[in-house]
Amino acid sequence: MMALVEHNAKELLNCIDSTVDSLCSEEADRALSYHGQTRIPMPSADALREFVDTVRAVIFPGYFGDPDMGIKSRRYHMGVLLDKIVRLLSEQAARGLCFEGGAAPGKTPEDCATQAQEIARGFVKRIPMIRTMLSTDVQAAFEGDPAAKSPGETIFCYPSIKVLTSHRIAHELYRAGCGLLPRIISEMAHSETGIDIHPGASIGENFFIDHGTGVVIGETCRIGKNVRLYQGVTLGAKSFPLDEAGNPVKGVPRHPIVGNNVIIYSGATILGRIRIGDNTVIGGNVWVTTDVPAGARVVQSRANRQRFERGAGI
Amino acid sequence: MMALVEHNAKELLNCIDSTVDSLCSEEADRALSYHGQTRIPMPSADALREFVDTVRAVIFPGYFGDPDMGIKSRRYHMGVLLDKIVRLLSEQAARGLCFEGGAAPGKTPEDCATQAQEIARGFVKRIPMIRTMLSTDVQAAFEGDPAAKSPGETIFCYPSIKVLTSHRIAHELYRAGCGLLPRIISEMAHSETGIDIHPGASIGENFFIDHGTGVVIGETCRIGKNVRLYQGVTLGAKSFPLDEAGNPVKGVPRHPIVGNNVIIYSGATILGRIRIGDNTVIGGNVWVTTDVPAGARVVQSRANRQRFERGAGI
Amino acid sequence: MMALVEHNAKELLNCIDSTVDSLCSEEADRALSYHGQTRIPMPSADALREFVDTVRAVIFPGYFGDPDMGIKSRRYHMGVLLDKIVRLLSEQAARGLCFEGGAAPGKTPEDCATQAQEIARGFVKRIPMIRTMLSTDVQAAFEGDPAAKSPGETIFCYPSIKVLTSHRIAHELYRAGCGLLPRIISEMAHSETGIDIHPGASIGENFFIDHGTGVVIGETCRIGKNVRLYQGVTLGAKSFPLDEAGNPVKGVPRHPIVGNNVIIYSGATILGRIRIGDNTVIGGNVWVTTDVPAGARVVQSRANRQRFERGAGI
Amino acid sequence: MMALVEHNAKELLNCIDSTVDSLCSEEADRALSYHGQTRIPMPSADALREFVDTVRAVIFPGYFGDPDMGIKSRRYHMGVLLDKIVRLLSEQAARGLCFEGGAAPGKTPEDCATQAQEIARGFVKRIPMIRTMLSTDVQAAFEGDPAAKSPGETIFCYPSIKVLTSHRIAHELYRAGCGLLPRIISEMAHSETGIDIHPGASIGENFFIDHGTGVVIGETCRIGKNVRLYQGVTLGAKSFPLDEAGNPVKGVPRHPIVGNNVIIYSGATILGRIRIGDNTVIGGNVWVTTDVPAGARVVQSRANRQRFERGAGI
Amino acid sequence: MMALVEHNAKELLNCIDSTVDSLCSEEADRALSYHGQTRIPMPSADALREFVDTVRAVIFPGYFGDPDMGIKSRRYHMGVLLDKIVRLLSEQAARGLCFEGGAAPGKTPEDCATQAQEIARGFVKRIPMIRTMLSTDVQAAFEGDPAAKSPGETIFCYPSIKVLTSHRIAHELYRAGCGLLPRIISEMAHSETGIDIHPGASIGENFFIDHGTGVVIGETCRIGKNVRLYQGVTLGAKSFPLDEAGNPVKGVPRHPIVGNNVIIYSGATILGRIRIGDNTVIGGNVWVTTDVPAGARVVQSRANRQRFERGAGI
Amino acid sequence: MMALVEHNAKELLNCIDSTVDSLCSEEADRALSYHGQTRIPMPSADALREFVDTVRAVIFPGYFGDPDMGIKSRRYHMGVLLDKIVRLLSEQAARGLCFEGGAAPGKTPEDCATQAQEIARGFVKRIPMIRTMLSTDVQAAFEGDPAAKSPGETIFCYPSIKVLTSHRIAHELYRAGCGLLPRIISEMAHSETGIDIHPGASIGENFFIDHGTGVVIGETCRIGKNVRLYQGVTLGAKSFPLDEAGNPVKGVPRHPIVGNNVIIYSGATILGRIRIGDNTVIGGNVWVTTDVPAGARVVQSRANRQRFERGAGI
Repeated sequence: MMALVEHNAKELLNCIDSTVDSLCSEEADRALSYHGQTRIPMPSADALREFVDTVRAVIFPGYFGDPDMGIKSRRYHMGVLLDKIVRLLSEQAARGLCFEGGAAPGKTPEDCATQAQEIARGFVKRIPMIRTMLSTDVQAAFEGDPAAKSPGETIFCYPSIKVLTSHRIAHELYRAGCGLLPRIISEMAHSETGIDIHPGASIGENFFIDHGTGVVIGETCRIGKNVRLYQGVTLGAKSFPLDEAGNPVKGVPRHPIVGNNVIIYSGATILGRIRIGDNTVIGGNVWVTTDVPAGARVVQSRANRQRFERGAGI
Repeated sequence: MMALVEHNAKELLNCIDSTVDSLCSEEADRALSYHGQTRIPMPSADALREFVDTVRAVIFPGYFGDPDMGIKSRRYHMGVLLDKIVRLLSEQAARGLCFEGGAAPGKTPEDCATQAQEIARGFVKRIPMIRTMLSTDVQAAFEGDPAAKSPGETIFCYPSIKVLTSHRIAHELYRAGCGLLPRIISEMAHSETGIDIHPGASIGENFFIDHGTGVVIGETCRIGKNVRLYQGVTLGAKSFPLDEAGNPVKGVPRHPIVGNNVIIYSGATILGRIRIGDNTVIGGNVWVTTDVPAGARVVQSRANRQRFERGAGI
Repeated sequence: MMALVEHNAKELLNCIDSTVDSLCSEEADRALSYHGQTRIPMPSADALREFVDTVRAVIFPGYFGDPDMGIKSRRYHMGVLLDKIVRLLSEQAARGLCFEGGAAPGKTPEDCATQAQEIARGFVKRIPMIRTMLSTDVQAAFEGDPAAKSPGETIFCYPSIKVLTSHRIAHELYRAGCGLLPRIISEMAHSETGIDIHPGASIGENFFIDHGTGVVIGETCRIGKNVRLYQGVTLGAKSFPLDEAGNPVKGVPRHPIVGNNVIIYSGATILGRIRIGDNTVIGGNVWVTTDVPAGARVVQSRANRQRFERGAGI
Repeated sequence: MMALVEHNAKELLNCIDSTVDSLCSEEADRALSYHGQTRIPMPSADALREFVDTVRAVIFPGYFGDPDMGIKSRRYHMGVLLDKIVRLLSEQAARGLCFEGGAAPGKTPEDCATQAQEIARGFVKRIPMIRTMLSTDVQAAFEGDPAAKSPGETIFCYPSIKVLTSHRIAHELYRAGCGLLPRIISEMAHSETGIDIHPGASIGENFFIDHGTGVVIGETCRIGKNVRLYQGVTLGAKSFPLDEAGNPVKGVPRHPIVGNNVIIYSGATILGRIRIGDNTVIGGNVWVTTDVPAGARVVQSRANRQRFERGAGI
Repeated sequence: MMALVEHNAKELLNCIDSTVDSLCSEEADRALSYHGQTRIPMPSADALREFVDTVRAVIFPGYFGDPDMGIKSRRYHMGVLLDKIVRLLSEQAARGLCFEGGAAPGKTPEDCATQAQEIARGFVKRIPMIRTMLSTDVQAAFEGDPAAKSPGETIFCYPSIKVLTSHRIAHELYRAGCGLLPRIISEMAHSETGIDIHPGASIGENFFIDHGTGVVIGETCRIGKNVRLYQGVTLGAKSFPLDEAGNPVKGVPRHPIVGNNVIIYSGATILGRIRIGDNTVIGGNVWVTTDVPAGARVVQSRANRQRFERGAGI
Repeated sequence: MMALVEHNAKELLNCIDSTVDSLCSEEADRALSYHGQTRIPMPSADALREFVDTVRAVIFPGYFGDPDMGIKSRRYHMGVLLDKIVRLLSEQAARGLCFEGGAAPGKTPEDCATQAQEIARGFVKRIPMIRTMLSTDVQAAFEGDPAAKSPGETIFCYPSIKVLTSHRIAHELYRAGCGLLPRIISEMAHSETGIDIHPGASIGENFFIDHGTGVVIGETCRIGKNVRLYQGVTLGAKSFPLDEAGNPVKGVPRHPIVGNNVIIYSGATILGRIRIGDNTVIGGNVWVTTDVPAGARVVQSRANRQRFERGAGI
């Protein structure tokens, strides 16, 4: 590029020099840098995106991935895609394990790589199961949205299928013991869909989220079969009790258990380790912090619904 | 890449082989694959993104697309961009029509391609109209947000203009009879902005959505002129009545009709085929499921607004 | 590509010609085109993305940017990254200033470029301060989320850190007097995270937003230290009073002032130039439009929380 | 980019307008444009490069193509690569046939596509034979160059193997009746290696060209087994006789027939439909236009070799 | 990447530090760095490649550039391509002029930019003439090579057309007074084709070079109409006389003048400011340093042609 | 892409299956595959190209590499470039050593990686020396070509400087004991310039090759200072004596030793372990196979130069 005017070279160098000094001081450096295993970098977001895309192509052939992956020669293509999945996951899981286990004395990068390879092979064996679960989710989306014209449309376009593909992958990795990778994957899906499902959440078959923006599903949620959510639903933790230091207590079951055949309408907030019974319907915008019995319908107080008013501000 | 350790080759091959077998079984394959017209792939999301970007460059020259598209030589550039629009849309619409019409007996890919070309030429003729509508939306955004410094800023940065550009394009395609393409386009805009407008929704001039995250506007909505929405507004369907199989009834007008000069504040939920009269204001977080007369202000019940409490959990 | 069928060349050319005529008419052209300084294009979104990514790499080395940026040779890398930051910002800020100041008589592109270079050098000197602020935000995220396993995980994955990195950069640019650039940066972060923080908002140290989708923080907000927000929180303006033309009055302080040690739960809406006192807790989904005293807990009306109902619609 | 100065807009538009007029006149347009089948473009050089690279990866696995194509899972990879070869060649050969047969009345693009697919499938079946031939060429390179450390080095680095891979592919396509494609492939190899082998030339096993720059081998050459050439060797046509119009007579055998076990040193020029007998050696820089008997050594006249001279120009 | 072993950090930093010291010493830096106008970089080889490719697409539409540039909408495409040519050339010529004129006192980058724009506009006006010349070269290639099946094949594949397109472009730029740019362009063509034509050489219509590798045509050559060369031909300078410092004298006419209707066979070397008369034929491998009268045939001495020899080395 | 016609699926699969069988047979696989160290791939040509480009940017700052690498902040840039050189070379040299040493029992990939790192650090220390040598070559090019307008032009455009940069890099690597890498580098330069210099050749300062296409310089050449070559010069081996198996004897000094201040004109062929004395001039196209005394001029026999002939073919 041709610059319209020139920097004052001395001022420029001066500002760079002094900022470098400041940023590279021992102390500053330690706080926000990744040091753990200098030979092993952080996982690559691009590689993980490619990993998820490749699994998606294996599960929904013709919809995603190489459009020319013909039916007759599909075995060859499947083999190559699975091989690629193993390789991508072996590398990235090794990085993730090194990051997480930086403190574990005596655990070498080679140990992490070996463990990562086992995780990768194990994951490949679980793909048919993930595919089966997603096939029920596709059916749920098609049946749950009057605007859906075909199951294929939900596979190709719906955020629900997109986020559940990522979640069911991430959940397998979470269960296999690599914590960072599934977290990265779920945040990528969160960014794309506005739906934030923690990889730890366990979700039954035939699940559907309509529209979805703003949905939050916490780490220790357990959701049954045939559940449908709308946009803005929170399945969260109550923040209390705090520990003695004033911080939330970590690591305990703290999110709802949702039964089978439940519908939760938009904006509903359900907090704490409560049970939402089978066959319940939770209305829009309601706030639930205690158990709901099976078969119940929970709706907003009528007082809350609307009030006409003339001539004044809101 | 150099791998730190080697996979056990036998285990690796074994896990790939068995997963390939499982994934390529006749039955599994049929469920989640795209078979319809093997010569014609699914539409390409990348090509559709390029299509939308090209229309945007035609409508807002200098803001988007080639920055060097000078005023004097603009005719040449416009012609080339329109030519590109025709080509991209001809190809992608043909794919979409083949996908949707897979079941129609006797309809060949060549028939789809011919129909797609007519759609593409028809679309190009509608671009000046789309441009006119968007020019009113730009004005609405500038006037509706105290933080906007110039109309140009809203063109360049505002999610409202971004999502409305996509929507007004998608709505034309929806009306022209290709169902999948506009759906893909609206989901791409949903992913970027958090605003989910079904391409079927009809929206009048001078429309503005501020912030916008979480807004949902359903397929059969009809929105008048000079309407302004804030984040988290739902213009949705009541889920009932269900049909005899327990699923939502499809294909009927089921979303609100919103009049002219209406403001709907953040988090309001308006459900069902109800009418929101002209010149009404719907307050934040309210829940509306019945008609609202012209000129009304609807606000939350005061009881609902806030309550002070000491010493207890939420 | 090989086309299945050919366009009717005459119809194709005809539709392009007539649309070009329509789009290139003097009047239409003026409305939605960027003319200001034809030598100087609009800022480049890609370049600004690269700028933000480069600052992120400087602040969190090893987490972002070149993974091989070793500790020992870090000074060299830091110098090059800062040099790149200066260059990217000098160019983009000059474009932004030309856009904003198009009307200023006698201000040349060269003047804008000179001013932009000063802004760029000034920005580089502020990076250590931004880094210090973000280090407190990392700590807040780690302490504020029971699911966070390490501070590093929040750096690498959390939307809160992502959006605050962008915001703290954008806020510096806002203060330095270039209005368009920070707006573009904050909209990019909004698109990625669903969190919409206006670059004018001033935010104290140790800030955390959990999940975050749907959060809106307005231009004139002032937020204290140790504040935590959840998804769907709005810190907005009351739309009234309108001016005589029926539009919102622009440019006045109109968003909340939030004290220190405040928690605001999901879906809460806080509107207007009100004060939320220190050490307060605002419950989920509540609607606050008046001052809240220090130490208060504000919760939803109980009436509003949940109501069981059998056999009827919502 | 920001331009230092602005073009005079009127002069700019004027020069563009008048040049467009000149270039788009009917007559000028016809001379140098490709019109034949407007639906079918020219072959893509990039696609053909990918085609050659894919065949190379199939023939020399581990040396070229995906380095991770493991031995155990190789069947999968091979299948996918062959599938890709068929698809690339089907498309490009169809384009080539449309180009060549533009004048053939009644031959449709669909006819060309069908023929191209047969060529593609036939080509795939010939790959093992091509591989066998190239394995002898690798051996010849290793044995023929004292500087070669291993056969693998010649596979990976030597222009001889690079150009012969292209040639043996191109020659198969030439024999299959598509004339343009092999010509493009051989010119790409010519550009990379400086070795110009016409795809029509027939070359026996165990062939080696050392250094190679400047070598020319004409269309109707027939070369036996175990032949070695050095840089700058021409196996060309005598330009005479001319036809009555003063142009070279086309389409007749006009290049040398070279026997088995022949060595031709650098710079030798061998012209016309002559026979170079088995076991001959042709010395550097000699000029041969008549048959050479088996077992002969042909060398430069001594007079020609060197002469010492003092005090004068060359 | 994961590294198998770690560098010794201290040794690594030490070797970098000491080499940086050595490379950045004032003196070393001055010798081999580009300092001239620090705001203006060297021309970009990529941009010049794009420039040449764009001119090629304008001259041979359908063969190169966008294959979908239909006949009917071609005016639009031509206009855009010419606009692009002007912009690329304006920028690159400005860089080239700044490089060359670094020493000219008082000449600013803005002066260079203004001059470059004039050159660019002038160049565009010359494109039809370049096109006309190249159309004769295409005819010459088709008629001059018995292997050519159609003129289109020579446009698409032949190094002769490729190098002449570059040369005729470069020669116009050379005449317009920018010296560096055409030199870069001719070296790019030299690298691709092995044919080295100095941009200063003047070449008449209907020119053809067959095979071409190794051809050299010097700066002050003047070549007539209907000339044909083969590979390895040199039209060079005699190196003598040297100046008093022992270097070749610069800037004088020193290369051959070749008349009309001349054929020069492979490997011929023609040196010095001599005249090769009309209608001459220069045989292969001959060495010519004196004038050749019109109508002559110059051939190698017979003694030189071939000699049989048995039982001895070469 | 949309295919005009469909492949016969059965024939397609059949041809792929049978070719896979043939290519994957044990025996075929072994012959032309790379098996050595399955964890370690072949060196990457792209990475080596980047390596050479990075060294070039270090040696000629401003001419190559980042044009914005300012003088004042150059130390930072230099450090980063050297760091990159170390990393690229460490990785690629490790691959090369694994390839070459596949047979060495007990040598692990880790051993190769350690050795490669030492080579990389050693190489960096030699860069200032390489720079010094190249600065003399730039001077030689400027002085040796009457068409060169400035030393900078030769740096930026001349094949001589391009090939010598590669050669002087490759020669250092050759001396450091990695054989494959320098060979790859020299073949890349050969492909670009048509000049084939074996990395083993030792070349003194102030070297220049004009035009260069077709030049060959063999592995054991030793060339003095101030030597100038023209296109088509061969400094090669005599092929004899053969060993008892009929192959050239490997590994012995077999190429010429060229003294100081020598000029060798185009097309000259100099073969065998002979000495070309200081201050000699070798004329064009001559053939030299015996020692040439210092101060000699060797020219073609006059008989050979030209002969006029009328009315007959060549």
